[in-house]
This record gives sequence, structure tokens and C-alpha cells, in this order.
Amino acid sequence: MGTVSATDPPLKRNVADESEENAMSIRKMISLHPSVHGHVNQPLGDAVHHLMYCAKMCRSCADACSAEATDMVQCIRLCLDCADICDATCNVALRQTGNDEQTVRELLELCARTCDSCAAECERHDHEHCRLCAQMCRECAEDCRNAAEAVTEPA
Amino acid sequence: MGTVSATDPPLKRNVADESEENAMSIRKMISLHPSVHGHVNQPLGDAVHHLMYCAKMCRSCADACSAEATDMVQCIRLCLDCADICDATCNVALRQTGNDEQTVRELLELCARTCDSCAAECERHDHEHCRLCAQMCRECAEDCRNAAEAVTEPA
Amino acid sequence: MGTVSATDPPLKRNVADESEENAMSIRKMISLHPSVHGHVNQPLGDAVHHLMYCAKMCRSCADACSAEATDMVQCIRLCLDCADICDATCNVALRQTGNDEQTVRELLELCARTCDSCAAECERHDHEHCRLCAQMCRECAEDCRNAAEAVTEPA
Amino acid sequence: MGTVSATDPPLKRNVADESEENAMSIRKMISLHPSVHGHVNQPLGDAVHHLMYCAKMCRSCADACSAEATDMVQCIRLCLDCADICDATCNVALRQTGNDEQTVRELLELCARTCDSCAAECERHDHEHCRLCAQMCRECAEDCRNAAEAVTEPA
Repeated sequence: MGTVSATDPPLKRNVADESEENAMSIRKMISLHPSVHGHVNQPLGDAVHHLMYCAKMCRSCADACSAEATDMVQCIRLCLDCADICDATCNVALRQTGNDEQTVRELLELCARTCDSCAAECERHDHEHCRLCAQMCRECAEDCRNAAEAVTEPA
Repeated sequence: MGTVSATDPPLKRNVADESEENAMSIRKMISLHPSVHGHVNQPLGDAVHHLMYCAKMCRSCADACSAEATDMVQCIRLCLDCADICDATCNVALRQTGNDEQTVRELLELCARTCDSCAAECERHDHEHCRLCAQMCRECAEDCRNAAEAVTEPA
Repeated sequence: MGTVSATDPPLKRNVADESEENAMSIRKMISLHPSVHGHVNQPLGDAVHHLMYCAKMCRSCADACSAEATDMVQCIRLCLDCADICDATCNVALRQTGNDEQTVRELLELCARTCDSCAAECERHDHEHCRLCAQMCRECAEDCRNAAEAVTEPA
Repeated sequence: MGTVSATDPPLKRNVADESEENAMSIRKMISLHPSVHGHVNQPLGDAVHHLMYCAKMCRSCADACSAEATDMVQCIRLCLDCADICDATCNVALRQTGNDEQTVRELLELCARTCDSCAAECERHDHEHCRLCAQMCRECAEDCRNAAEAVTEPA
């Protein structure tokens, strides 16, 4: 994608190819920062990628929960809280200009705990949207923990 | 991903596979809403997918622009405005409970125009992050227009 | 507030005084931009102020609706959509660096229509939180329309 | 405001009066939740009120910084990170349906530390927008700490 100029014909829009391109281009985008010079923090890029998806999954699950016949208020609450925290963590972790390492690390750790809480609640319900949301939250929590370990103060 | 329960071992974490899984699961997630019953609006799902990426690309480009030696204030402004509008459009378009079709359609149309403006500005600069951001904005604008056409009032 | 240095003793924390200080300081903040030079667009400042409150009211109303015994799914949907659009409009309208007038104006107009839809739905319910939310939405819509008229292309 | 129905004539739009009305109505709104029954957590309401303002101040300061002639990249970074975290904390703290006390408390504490970091950076600069932003961040940090102490697990 990086070698394609914006005036070239659009990429073939096969879902899998496009997703692969997109997935790589989030990491590629981070690597293109003037202050990064191609030296990408891979666990941080993975976390940003998962946080983006997890925020949307949680919002979608909360919306689906609100249409269920059973009482899902606690699941809606945890999904919306998790979505807000994933969104903020994603936007903060994406920034490469200037230094804010301690906040990034603490926020990734808090976000991992929040994802675990949301997953535990979603795992209590039989709805397929809850199952999918729980799995995404577990994967996101793992990536957030890996990224938190990889974030170090500048030498 | 949908056939894997949340207590199964984690998926192999190959980037391309994972992206494909994730890309499908955003559309799958929408299809799991009690009020959708597996009848997915495909152009809307595609737009949600692109909006999610475009918002992050624009935030990342604005951040990279702020570290460039040249004056990038207009590009930062358009990227941040585009990111805010993509985020809102994504969250609104993701909802399937209740009806808000006119707002969804008007917001998708406005978002397409905003993406075009941002792309036009990014295309004026030689930075690789601007080239990548411009391409993403053009693709997102196309998907937003397709989705706006596909959103119709409930019968 | 502007004449108090950050190391001075904290202001007396009377709610009304503090609110007055805060309300003025959002407008004051906009006036302090290097590119604004004290020449504030008053209707735009008023809209930013109302958009900030309206977004929170709508999120709070959606949350309260989800705890009501009656079916409030349509009201939750419109409140959350309105909140997302108010948040985006507020953040976009707050920016003074660079020019994005056409997007600002179109977004303010779309936001006014969204606030009206949300108010019309909230007005159908007897809950006090819906009454308060509807009133805030009506005031916000009026301020958005006034601000949209006041936003003009740079000479 | 609470005694005025949505179809009554609009309130007189005096800035100070309106702000006072609005400030009270955020707290009033929280008190109107079916699960709260008029029993408001006052420190939490104060924090929500300050978080809403602080997020906007930080975004506005970052925008003004980007138009300054001097190098403000570190200040822009800390202001945008602080804005994202204040927005998330505000939205999470606003919710009253369901229970998520541990996340709310940890997020308020992290947000207080983030506000302090942002204030410390803003206090290093002579710009009036930085002075105003620093003061708002200090006040917000104090309210977040008070609210964190007041959030307790349900009996």
C-alpha cells in the first residue's frame, strides 16, 4: 500500500486482502512518523490494532444487548465502559510525537483489567454477540499487557 | 472466529489471518443483533470497517505532521476534523437497535465529503504518512457513499 | 480566571461562581488562540458550550433509559447517536487553527437536526431525565443554527 | 430548569444564569436515574462537571499550541492524551446503571495523575491558553481524587 500513490487505481477490494493491507498499514503508519524512523514497537502496534477492534465490538455488543428480551443492563454497562477506555487507550497509544510513557503504560494496564471484566460478564451469557465480544476482549487484554511491558522510558 | 468459544485456546496470531478474522467479525458482529437476524447490510458493514481504520489513520497522520519540520497546520486541522467525524459516523452506523436512518444517511454523506477534503490536503504533501492517509480517506469516502445509498427507511 | 496564575490558591469552589468562571473560560480559551487574537466568534462559542453539555445529557439520558422498566430502545438509540454527533461537532467547532469552514457549517446544521430528532423522541416520555434532555437538545439545536450562520469563509 | 417543561418558552440566555442552570442540571441529571433515586454522589457529580470542561480546555490548548511559533510538540502531546483520558473518564463516571466501581475508581485516579502531568507541562509555558489549561487541569485532578475516594463498592 505504501508504494501506491493516491492517484493510482484503487486496490482490488477483496475483503481478506484489504484487511491484510489495512492491518499492515496501521503498523506501517506508526513506522512513518518522523520521530520513529522505521523503528516500530511491534507489541504497541498490535495493541493499537486490537484496541480499535475491541472498542467497536463492545459498542456493538452493548447495542445488541439493549435489543435482547432478557435483562442485560450490567453487560451493557461493562461493554460501554470498556469501549470508552479502549478508544482512549488506542488514541493515546497511537501517538508517537513527544513522550508520555508512564501514562501510556498505566492506561494499557488499566485497559487490560477492564477488558477482562467485560469478558467475564459477556462469558456469562449465551448470546453469540457476547461470545464474540468476550473473545475479542481476552485477546485485547493480552495485547495490552504485552504492549505495557514493551513501553519503556526514552534512554 | 464465530465457531470458537471464548474458552478455547487463542487463535494463532498470524497478522494476515488475524486481520481476516477480525474483518469478518465486525460484519459478523453486526449480523448477530437480535433485530438484524443474520440479514446484514453489506455496504454498511464495509463502511463501518473503513471508518474505523480511517479515523485512526487521520489521528496518526496529524500526530506525524506535528513532528515534521515544515508548516503542516492546515493538514493537522483537516486530519483531526476528519478523525472526529469518522469516529462519530462509525459509532452511529454500527448501531442496529432502533431506527435513525435519516441521520445515518446524512452523516455518511457529510463524512464522505470530509474524507475527500482531508485526502485533497494530504495529497499536496510528499510525506509518506500523508500519502497513506489520503488513500485511506479516498477508499473510506467511496464506502461511505455506497453505504448512504444502501440505507433506506424501514418498510 | 485568566488573571489567576496556576500557582495561586484555588478559587473559592462555589458551584454557581465556578460555573460562571468555567463558562466564560471556554469562550476565553477560544479567544486566546494565536490565530484568533481576541476576536471571538460569540455564536460559535455559545454552540461549543451547549454541545459539550448536550453530549453529556444525552449519554446520561440513554443510561437512565436503560434502567427504566418500560421499552426505551428507540430513545436510547437517538440519545446515543445525538451524543456522538454533539461530541464530534463540539471538538471540530472548538478548533481555530487552519480553516475548515464548510465542514464546520454542515456539521453544525446536521447536529441541529439530530438534536431536534432526539428532543422529539424524549418529549414523548414522562421521565424527568427525558424532559431535561429534550430541553437541552432544543437549546443546543438553536445555538448550532445560530453558529452555522455565523461561520463564514475567511475573507 | 427541572421545573420547566420542554415546551415552555426558552430560558433567558444570560451567560451566568445559563451556566448555573447547566451546572446544576448535570448533577440533577445524575440524580434522576431510576437506580439513583435522588441520592446523588456529590463528589462524583463535581468530577464529571470538571472532566467535561477539562477535556475541552486540553483540546483547545493543543489546537492553540499548534499555531504558536515556538516548538510545542510535547505540550500538544500531553494535552491531547489528557483530553482523551478526561473524555473517557467523564463518560464512564456519568453512568449510574449497573456497577463498575473498581474501574471507575482506578480511572479517576489515573486521570488525576494525567491532569497533573499536563498541568506541569503547561505551567512551563508563558502562553495564556497554557496558563488557563494548567489551572483547569489542577482543579480537575483535585475533583477526580475526591471522587475516587467517594466511590465505594455497593453494600
